[in-house]
Amino acid sequence: MHVSQVFLCKQKQSQTSKTGKTYYSLKLRDKTGMIDAKIWDLTNAIEHFETNDFVMAEGSVTTFNGALQLRVTRIRRAKKGEYDEAEYMPASSFSAEKMYAELMELKNKVENPHLRRLLDAFFVEDAEFIRSFKSHSAAKSVHHNFLGGLLQHTLRVTQLCYFYCRQYPMLNKDLLLTAAIFHDVGKTRELSDFPDNDYTDEGQLLGHIVIGYEMVKKKIDELGGFPKKLETELLHCILAHQGQLEYGSPKKPSIIEALALYYADDTDAKLEIMIEEFENSNSLDFLGLNRFLGTNIRRTSQEE
Amino acid sequence: MHVSQVFLCKQKQSQTSKTGKTYYSLKLRDKTGMIDAKIWDLTNAIEHFETNDFVMAEGSVTTFNGALQLRVTRIRRAKKGEYDEAEYMPASSFSAEKMYAELMELKNKVENPHLRRLLDAFFVEDAEFIRSFKSHSAAKSVHHNFLGGLLQHTLRVTQLCYFYCRQYPMLNKDLLLTAAIFHDVGKTRELSDFPDNDYTDEGQLLGHIVIGYEMVKKKIDELGGFPKKLETELLHCILAHQGQLEYGSPKKPSIIEALALYYADDTDAKLEIMIEEFENSNSLDFLGLNRFLGTNIRRTSQEE
Amino acid sequence: MHVSQVFLCKQKQSQTSKTGKTYYSLKLRDKTGMIDAKIWDLTNAIEHFETNDFVMAEGSVTTFNGALQLRVTRIRRAKKGEYDEAEYMPASSFSAEKMYAELMELKNKVENPHLRRLLDAFFVEDAEFIRSFKSHSAAKSVHHNFLGGLLQHTLRVTQLCYFYCRQYPMLNKDLLLTAAIFHDVGKTRELSDFPDNDYTDEGQLLGHIVIGYEMVKKKIDELGGFPKKLETELLHCILAHQGQLEYGSPKKPSIIEALALYYADDTDAKLEIMIEEFENSNSLDFLGLNRFLGTNIRRTSQEE
Amino acid sequence: MHVSQVFLCKQKQSQTSKTGKTYYSLKLRDKTGMIDAKIWDLTNAIEHFETNDFVMAEGSVTTFNGALQLRVTRIRRAKKGEYDEAEYMPASSFSAEKMYAELMELKNKVENPHLRRLLDAFFVEDAEFIRSFKSHSAAKSVHHNFLGGLLQHTLRVTQLCYFYCRQYPMLNKDLLLTAAIFHDVGKTRELSDFPDNDYTDEGQLLGHIVIGYEMVKKKIDELGGFPKKLETELLHCILAHQGQLEYGSPKKPSIIEALALYYADDTDAKLEIMIEEFENSNSLDFLGLNRFLGTNIRRTSQEE
Amino acid sequence: MHVSQVFLCKQKQSQTSKTGKTYYSLKLRDKTGMIDAKIWDLTNAIEHFETNDFVMAEGSVTTFNGALQLRVTRIRRAKKGEYDEAEYMPASSFSAEKMYAELMELKNKVENPHLRRLLDAFFVEDAEFIRSFKSHSAAKSVHHNFLGGLLQHTLRVTQLCYFYCRQYPMLNKDLLLTAAIFHDVGKTRELSDFPDNDYTDEGQLLGHIVIGYEMVKKKIDELGGFPKKLETELLHCILAHQGQLEYGSPKKPSIIEALALYYADDTDAKLEIMIEEFENSNSLDFLGLNRFLGTNIRRTSQEE
Amino acid sequence: MHVSQVFLCKQKQSQTSKTGKTYYSLKLRDKTGMIDAKIWDLTNAIEHFETNDFVMAEGSVTTFNGALQLRVTRIRRAKKGEYDEAEYMPASSFSAEKMYAELMELKNKVENPHLRRLLDAFFVEDAEFIRSFKSHSAAKSVHHNFLGGLLQHTLRVTQLCYFYCRQYPMLNKDLLLTAAIFHDVGKTRELSDFPDNDYTDEGQLLGHIVIGYEMVKKKIDELGGFPKKLETELLHCILAHQGQLEYGSPKKPSIIEALALYYADDTDAKLEIMIEEFENSNSLDFLGLNRFLGTNIRRTSQEE
Repeated sequence: MHVSQVFLCKQKQSQTSKTGKTYYSLKLRDKTGMIDAKIWDLTNAIEHFETNDFVMAEGSVTTFNGALQLRVTRIRRAKKGEYDEAEYMPASSFSAEKMYAELMELKNKVENPHLRRLLDAFFVEDAEFIRSFKSHSAAKSVHHNFLGGLLQHTLRVTQLCYFYCRQYPMLNKDLLLTAAIFHDVGKTRELSDFPDNDYTDEGQLLGHIVIGYEMVKKKIDELGGFPKKLETELLHCILAHQGQLEYGSPKKPSIIEALALYYADDTDAKLEIMIEEFENSNSLDFLGLNRFLGTNIRRTSQEE
Repeated sequence: MHVSQVFLCKQKQSQTSKTGKTYYSLKLRDKTGMIDAKIWDLTNAIEHFETNDFVMAEGSVTTFNGALQLRVTRIRRAKKGEYDEAEYMPASSFSAEKMYAELMELKNKVENPHLRRLLDAFFVEDAEFIRSFKSHSAAKSVHHNFLGGLLQHTLRVTQLCYFYCRQYPMLNKDLLLTAAIFHDVGKTRELSDFPDNDYTDEGQLLGHIVIGYEMVKKKIDELGGFPKKLETELLHCILAHQGQLEYGSPKKPSIIEALALYYADDTDAKLEIMIEEFENSNSLDFLGLNRFLGTNIRRTSQEE
Repeated sequence: MHVSQVFLCKQKQSQTSKTGKTYYSLKLRDKTGMIDAKIWDLTNAIEHFETNDFVMAEGSVTTFNGALQLRVTRIRRAKKGEYDEAEYMPASSFSAEKMYAELMELKNKVENPHLRRLLDAFFVEDAEFIRSFKSHSAAKSVHHNFLGGLLQHTLRVTQLCYFYCRQYPMLNKDLLLTAAIFHDVGKTRELSDFPDNDYTDEGQLLGHIVIGYEMVKKKIDELGGFPKKLETELLHCILAHQGQLEYGSPKKPSIIEALALYYADDTDAKLEIMIEEFENSNSLDFLGLNRFLGTNIRRTSQEE
Repeated sequence: MHVSQVFLCKQKQSQTSKTGKTYYSLKLRDKTGMIDAKIWDLTNAIEHFETNDFVMAEGSVTTFNGALQLRVTRIRRAKKGEYDEAEYMPASSFSAEKMYAELMELKNKVENPHLRRLLDAFFVEDAEFIRSFKSHSAAKSVHHNFLGGLLQHTLRVTQLCYFYCRQYPMLNKDLLLTAAIFHDVGKTRELSDFPDNDYTDEGQLLGHIVIGYEMVKKKIDELGGFPKKLETELLHCILAHQGQLEYGSPKKPSIIEALALYYADDTDAKLEIMIEEFENSNSLDFLGLNRFLGTNIRRTSQEE
Repeated sequence: MHVSQVFLCKQKQSQTSKTGKTYYSLKLRDKTGMIDAKIWDLTNAIEHFETNDFVMAEGSVTTFNGALQLRVTRIRRAKKGEYDEAEYMPASSFSAEKMYAELMELKNKVENPHLRRLLDAFFVEDAEFIRSFKSHSAAKSVHHNFLGGLLQHTLRVTQLCYFYCRQYPMLNKDLLLTAAIFHDVGKTRELSDFPDNDYTDEGQLLGHIVIGYEMVKKKIDELGGFPKKLETELLHCILAHQGQLEYGSPKKPSIIEALALYYADDTDAKLEIMIEEFENSNSLDFLGLNRFLGTNIRRTSQEE
Repeated sequence: MHVSQVFLCKQKQSQTSKTGKTYYSLKLRDKTGMIDAKIWDLTNAIEHFETNDFVMAEGSVTTFNGALQLRVTRIRRAKKGEYDEAEYMPASSFSAEKMYAELMELKNKVENPHLRRLLDAFFVEDAEFIRSFKSHSAAKSVHHNFLGGLLQHTLRVTQLCYFYCRQYPMLNKDLLLTAAIFHDVGKTRELSDFPDNDYTDEGQLLGHIVIGYEMVKKKIDELGGFPKKLETELLHCILAHQGQLEYGSPKKPSIIEALALYYADDTDAKLEIMIEEFENSNSLDFLGLNRFLGTNIRRTSQEE
């Protein structure tokens, strides 16, 4: 099968064959998935390109060890206009605009003026933050590692928290919704933008919990007039949302909204891990040990 | 202050004073709480009674070491009609009938005929089970340790699961709701009835997870015709609902409904622990290390 | 070296060579062990067969990377009569009949009529159970993963328990012997029969502890008249025989027979792991980290 | 023995005797230590006072259960001028001024202009910070829980780090010294001033690691012009100085200065725990299980 | 009830009553158990004595808080001849001489001349060692904490090991029996003699594993001519007999005899803990959480 | 590129090519590092040699899979005189003689005559020990796994301890310096000499902690006259220097010198791990998860 199309080059390695010849081993992505590729002959048809470039490649597809492999005969960097960047990245299956609108509806249920003003400073007034928040992933791998993943995860967590408020009247709705919406904002700086989507230096050394804490704390200081206890409680919710010290939270939940946020976050994260595993596999049998869930998992049967 | 009323005697100990005299040390409960009591003089006015008897006691209330103490001068077993048993036990603050009706509404959302028939066999047709399920606690101490606690916990967990089904379409609603309703039925045999509310012998040696498994498995066998995979999945959800081996589940959740049930169960249990702690204390300050949550907890501030 | 004989095909994979040709990579077992095989040319001499089929194969044996490899030139499914199934499976080095007789002798030392009747219902009256019990392995890998492994392990554990009874008179001999004989019966349903010997669906989702519990509990209910405390204690021994929650027992041993059974089970399992490791290796040096024992192991020296 | 002097009242509890009389149970501290006290008769000579007040008390000292006890006959709040506050608090045995001077000498070895300017903004220009830093404890209990404890601990840690720089040339001296000097500044807000010396609300909910991070981060932003990587590395050292997630650090040490700081901090903390235990006891025998060190400890013998 | 007899004084504390009078609080043991005692009046009839002295005491027995209490009116040190030391210490219920003879029988089954000579050097030729070994406890508390406890435990462990040798022919009988007999000899120096039976200084700082290692190693060096590998294997068995690093063994079992010894030691220790708990209690109900076994325990029922 | 030089052969494997030809795969080391080599043709120019031999090899260097590969055409064992053994082993970058002199200076600060005499018996009088100690590594892999590594590590630890003595006057300088110098002497027998540098049999079965303990204990017994408590304390420091039971110390530090030694040892080991990782890599980016440090590490930036 001959192909000629634009790919995103995710990996490019120079190698030497037994006979001493240099060749390239590539990983190329298009909207349908990833394919291994080889450039065996470095002719004039092989122009310069690097990892994370969009490339226009031509060649034939064969099978090797049971997987498809593209033997590239011609390749060059793709030109703006030849491709739509968004199509080359894994993305949430939900509309970003629709999810954002739902999140804003939940935000608007916050009545406390300090919390509302703080939320608006990020989610209404800060266009650059909004752009970044909408398109970020929520992780490098694990779960929600796609365009819009941060938004989808934040929405699910906030919806869960809103439901908790109906079940447990002791919960302070304004504080919990605000904490839910803010809990992962540090991820906009912990991970770089797509297509890179990798840990930044401050992501590695400080982590999204502390970065998010600092983003919110700084804005509170700028806005001024925040009640001290409320500030401390909101920041505590952000710090404690991983629930356990060994998961990277420097404090365990001491107030009930922090505890509720931890459960909403963990519930969505772990269910999403299973959902993504099953969506990425056609098997109805056990998939083997899942390292995040610590057990062997399988899809539920569909017998009637 | 002189009192003369019926109490439930929760503890009765015979002791000897320094001067060699025998006296009794009691713990008495009425609807307002628990009080320490002493019987210093064993006169004819002190009739025979035992722990867990209802007693008509008379005496004067004083303070000792900052707490109230009743010096009993006259005591006898109370007669049927002198008291209403229900008033002497801690009970859910929600109506048992109303909660049961809500739970049945959720049950009726189960459409799979096998699961529905199984649910009805317990929750519609088995009057003795229904009586026991309605009045049981969900624990000896920890959380939901009151009349109706099992019903309240089961309702909250099932409501959470129903909400999850709206958020995560991959979840099999019929299986999850059924598993949620059944997950703690073993507690009707793990703990004895009020006023005793203590571990039974099989509760200690087998535990509510395995007892509940066996109650459901036996009924499935009796009813017959259950699809084998569906049966195994439902039983797996019951076995795995504590989420971790070290919490007493012999299996970790391998299917998504078992994982969802674990989160619903854990969320309600832990939030209820905090709620009960705050309801049992007037302090707005930190309450000290809570051994179930592993951290120091305090009520959220109410500043505006 | 040319060979022509029957093998059990344990693995069959279709692969594509660099030159684009399809070939098969096989793992074939006979009584002497496992050999890698390749079918390079898919001629008419290569008939259809699948994994776990017995095949009559012909070809030449060469060495590749220091190991033997069979280049298959002709292959077909073997016919009944061309081979003896038992010879192609790893099996206990002890006679199944002899071990079963020894186990029955120990069973006959049980004097309590309820326990004896229960044992006989399985080990004397249930021919299908007896067949399955005799030929099962005790594990998929780890230890005793061979034909008769379950029987051999059960016999060793019961013998150890019988010895404990002589040393510690407090042990209830009848209860302990019965619990020992029953402790792993759930494995007859946790693992499928040979040559498959893999986890069944209920094995994965329920586990042999709970399956065994339920097999015994159901029979007790059928037989009727069992003393309640004795029933609970026997079932507790089965549930608690792994000793620790994190090893999958939903209860830790609370009575002394359960504790003794745990030690007998663990002693035989771990010693057998070492024995099998040493039998599978000719090295007198350290074998490297053993993941079940958590340390580096070596055979004891034979110096005089 | 009759006494009449000023004490700091660390505890005041109202109690009722068997005969129904109210009395007070106190804990009083002077520079020589703590003494239990009782006020049996609430006469006019007993004026109003509260916990943490300085009081002028009069009475007789007796022994009770082998310990001294003061029977107070007269008590009133002490007047300013009747006592020197510093004498009533446990304090470092080293001079605060001398230790501060030594710390400043180490600070002056920092040559990088950004780090030096940052240090000076706290340790030279901010008088209120300096006052607080000098007089704070480094803990509520555990170790260095005395006036000047924070200064003494910071000095010892910085000295250790300076020594490491001589041994391991790979260490960036400027970064490590700066991180050492700043590592516990958050304690000035985690714990309240003496005589209270208890966790503040933000201390409980945010913790000294995050508070210290934020104090330094805020100042860096104010000063401006800080190299980004250097800023991240310094902040990382503060966040990671407890070495392990389960000790409350949201990140483990990723750069060598963070690792070195962790060792210096832990070495001084643990050695100081032993030193304080031995100084608080005259025993040459084993003191029993120390819960911070997890073992039984004793002073080294002095045999020659 | 008036008594006049010899006791072993296990505790003597000087205390001061509310009225300022000094009195003594004692714990006295005779063969029937322990009794609390008070000396209220320090008359001439109260002669000098210390903890661990045998005393001739006279007084009246009353009950206080439900327990017996002896009010001592006359007391003096007992004279040699007035009592038999052995009667005042908890002791094995088995005859020391009989147990020693059984152990020697097992010792005589060792055929390897090096191992046999080593065993004889301790258990035949060293009278002081034999005396100490026979009368020692195997622990300060926990299990086998009585006269002859070390001998009883060593015998049970060696018997178990001998049984293992019959079940698992791979075991080197001579090595395993020798290791079993020697495994706890370090306890003769880890714990002091009765009536003290407390940790010695080297017991605390070095522990019985290393002490035992060194006793055997030193003797091997003295005797000379030991095969090097055999020596290392025997010493390894002693070092590894606690099975896990966190239980104080500096090495985990790497050879099969070390693994077998670990199981024999652990089996006897844990079963003995349960046996002693049940012998020390008359209750047929659950005894509450046992801290060594980590669970709630109860005696097995005796229903027929 | 053609080469002809002496290498140390670290690995030699016989393999068979697809075409059935035997060839050799080698790993050869010279002072600049390790290189893969192949001997494709087994001609007369290929003489006999074994792993760990020094060989004179001739051939051409090519690249394969991005790494260098030597195709050997001629090879023979090297003759004494053709090479300098020391050049072929990884070695400390510091002079062994200089480091030893520094260590001896620290040794000479020990004033207690018993400790000094004990040190001299090893470090002055025992020439064979001195030779072995100077050239040993401190580990097989992990850290300090080079010629002189044991000496370098011992020196660093002793220097740290000497610095602690200046900071914490409670430390017994003589005891701590002696313990530091002796703490790893067992490594001279736990690991074999270079070029082998692998675990010995007693290294595997007994470990360097116990071996070192025994070396020192034996010498103390030989010298005689050692104060008992001092001996026990010194031996305790050696046994406890890994700080935790799970790291292989049979005792945790109970005296302050043992605790200090643990910190010095752990500080030098962990800092050295990072230093070696960075020295073995040119990357300024994160190096990925380091398994000994449990986190992702990177070199500190050099921005000014």
